[in-house]
Amino acid sequence: MQDEVCKSVDKILSDIKNYGDDALIKYTNKFDSQNISKENICVSREEIENAYKTVDKKFLDVLRRAAENIMFFHEKQKRNSWIVTKENGVILGQKVMALERVGVYVPGGTAAYPSSVLMNVIPAKIAGVKDIVMVTPPLKDGSINSNILVAADIAGVSKIYKIGGAQAVGALAFGTDIIDKVDKVVGPGNVFVAEAKKSVFGYVGIDMIAGPSEILILADGSANPKYIAADLMSQAEHDKLASAILITDSEELSEKVTIELQRQVKTLSRKNIILESLKNYGLIIVTDNIENGIRLSNIIAPEHLELCVREPFSILESIKNAGSIFMGNFAPEPLGDYIAGPNHVLPTSGTARFFSPLSVDDFIKKSSFTYYTRKSFSKVGNDIIKFADIEGLTAHANSVKVRLK
Amino acid sequence: MQDEVCKSVDKILSDIKNYGDDALIKYTNKFDSQNISKENICVSREEIENAYKTVDKKFLDVLRRAAENIMFFHEKQKRNSWIVTKENGVILGQKVMALERVGVYVPGGTAAYPSSVLMNVIPAKIAGVKDIVMVTPPLKDGSINSNILVAADIAGVSKIYKIGGAQAVGALAFGTDIIDKVDKVVGPGNVFVAEAKKSVFGYVGIDMIAGPSEILILADGSANPKYIAADLMSQAEHDKLASAILITDSEELSEKVTIELQRQVKTLSRKNIILESLKNYGLIIVTDNIENGIRLSNIIAPEHLELCVREPFSILESIKNAGSIFMGNFAPEPLGDYIAGPNHVLPTSGTARFFSPLSVDDFIKKSSFTYYTRKSFSKVGNDIIKFADIEGLTAHANSVKVRLK
Repeated sequence: MQDEVCKSVDKILSDIKNYGDDALIKYTNKFDSQNISKENICVSREEIENAYKTVDKKFLDVLRRAAENIMFFHEKQKRNSWIVTKENGVILGQKVMALERVGVYVPGGTAAYPSSVLMNVIPAKIAGVKDIVMVTPPLKDGSINSNILVAADIAGVSKIYKIGGAQAVGALAFGTDIIDKVDKVVGPGNVFVAEAKKSVFGYVGIDMIAGPSEILILADGSANPKYIAADLMSQAEHDKLASAILITDSEELSEKVTIELQRQVKTLSRKNIILESLKNYGLIIVTDNIENGIRLSNIIAPEHLELCVREPFSILESIKNAGSIFMGNFAPEPLGDYIAGPNHVLPTSGTARFFSPLSVDDFIKKSSFTYYTRKSFSKVGNDIIKFADIEGLTAHANSVKVRLK
Repeated sequence: MQDEVCKSVDKILSDIKNYGDDALIKYTNKFDSQNISKENICVSREEIENAYKTVDKKFLDVLRRAAENIMFFHEKQKRNSWIVTKENGVILGQKVMALERVGVYVPGGTAAYPSSVLMNVIPAKIAGVKDIVMVTPPLKDGSINSNILVAADIAGVSKIYKIGGAQAVGALAFGTDIIDKVDKVVGPGNVFVAEAKKSVFGYVGIDMIAGPSEILILADGSANPKYIAADLMSQAEHDKLASAILITDSEELSEKVTIELQRQVKTLSRKNIILESLKNYGLIIVTDNIENGIRLSNIIAPEHLELCVREPFSILESIKNAGSIFMGNFAPEPLGDYIAGPNHVLPTSGTARFFSPLSVDDFIKKSSFTYYTRKSFSKVGNDIIKFADIEGLTAHANSVKVRLK
């Protein structure tokens, strides 16, 4: 299976490289819609205006409030260039710049989440990326989901193209006559998209390859079993492969949560997915004390971590590995999915050990710079020559010698 | 060729996963030295003390001064956790933490550069990584180059293992009885090391995959042709694949540099490498004006960029893509390789468009956190429910409903 995906993605990417827009249109009409041409591949301003007319007005307000909160949080992540002057006129510094052009992949069909549009686009916008290009596969009739269009517009996308799959990733990475080459491709997608992103890594930057979603709830006896059961299932409903884990030092809580799970699940529309996910990847672990629970949580390094304990801030310091941390009883994970402001694109499968939430940092690059005067350079000249001699690089030493003559 | 490397790396990695230290010792004794056992695979304190006795005393001083400058620069890159309190008791923040354990790969043989040890280890140390594990293939007699050992000790490495190649990368990524699993593997290596790093990406973090080294010098009529010729060759001597490019608006300078190249190359020990590199990847480009030179440089996105122009600071803003920028006539690239302080591990092959120099940022991870009170949560509850409804996720809505009842 994996081999077939690779082969198919290789073929698509090489066709995009060689035949550009012709291949792009061909694959789009093969996989997505039969109506896409060079003339209508880019979403028009009129389509966006029409989308505003059709979306739920209340939802539009919610989208705007969510965007505002996400902007507020990500503004705090912005970083300045800096410079430091040393004795003898030495100047060192680090220049921080936004990437010039970024591509955001947004899945189509049932996985078309307007919240993900906000979460992927806004950090790029705040970083200062000028050109944010969104790609998303069109529906059968050649249109794009209206909620996605308005979310993109609110978030500040520059252009939207009706393309998806490996062919969209290829077009962003290599460029075509219509689509400008980008510096980085972000956003979730199916196995073909993930494989294509891996393949183009190096030509362009990519974000993390996301695995199935996970929640870990760390709770003591003060927690409310109703809340915990609800939150475990809010994660489980994403996907049969999603994982929901409760770790608690309270035997009583663990029993009450089990009862609540059975009670609440009946009312939920995605009941079957939830039950299968809980059966395969759900877990309740009772530990001797909260400290052991924390230790376990740090080993698991969950994507989402809820701290449903008496004093969540008192244990924040001991949390070493987690994507996003939800403190106390009134910060359920869906709050972070939609409204709070921190990013919901998070490291999965234990990678919070070394990966971080999507942030403004993912849309900047840095350059260091160095200035020496003749005098300050003459003071370190012999050190450079010594180093070059030890490493056997005489032309390195020569670049000093010609200056010190 | 690439396929054979892949196959061989796959086999080595799976042997390390399945047979741990036994496979590690077997491969080390096959590829590197016949003397390595579980007892002597870790460099002893005595070996390090002996290395101090054998290295050039003047070089030791240079190493220490270099380390001090590298620490000074990287200290400025440190970042704090932050917290922001909003109306209604909402608290948001970002926790910045060091990775717990990092592996640094250091090549053996002629590519054993003590400067690279400093450049890879010090940012991890400054970030606060507790365990910095270095791996490097032993010489035939089972020893490690003394300069490498003292550089590692000065930089603050916790443990050094006499292992190299794909087997070392595998041991760091998966862990064995002797070698603890790390969170990230950094450092340059041959094709087997690069392939192994790509393979373990996701189990652990990795740094960039480095390509051949490059320099681009942007010079106007004020530049000294002797310096420029020397600097072009200091890059060219690294490798037959290294690239050295001069862009200037002065026809006269371009001619003088050509003469200087021919004159100076005669005196250099790596003459043959330099000539081959210049022949295949060297270039002098004369542009109408410096602005066009800058434009071209931004497209090339060089690893090293020297600005040998009258007022280098006046054009710093217009430099968009470059790993490390050397300002003026007394900041030749070897200054940055060894002494100045900014990192010499830099994005190559045009990836400065989206990658950055190795920095403290590469050894940290971030977690966001969110706290809401009951009251502040109740104000956004309906927004979350609306979002969840639009995205068809009823269990997400349910986690709000159970709280607002």
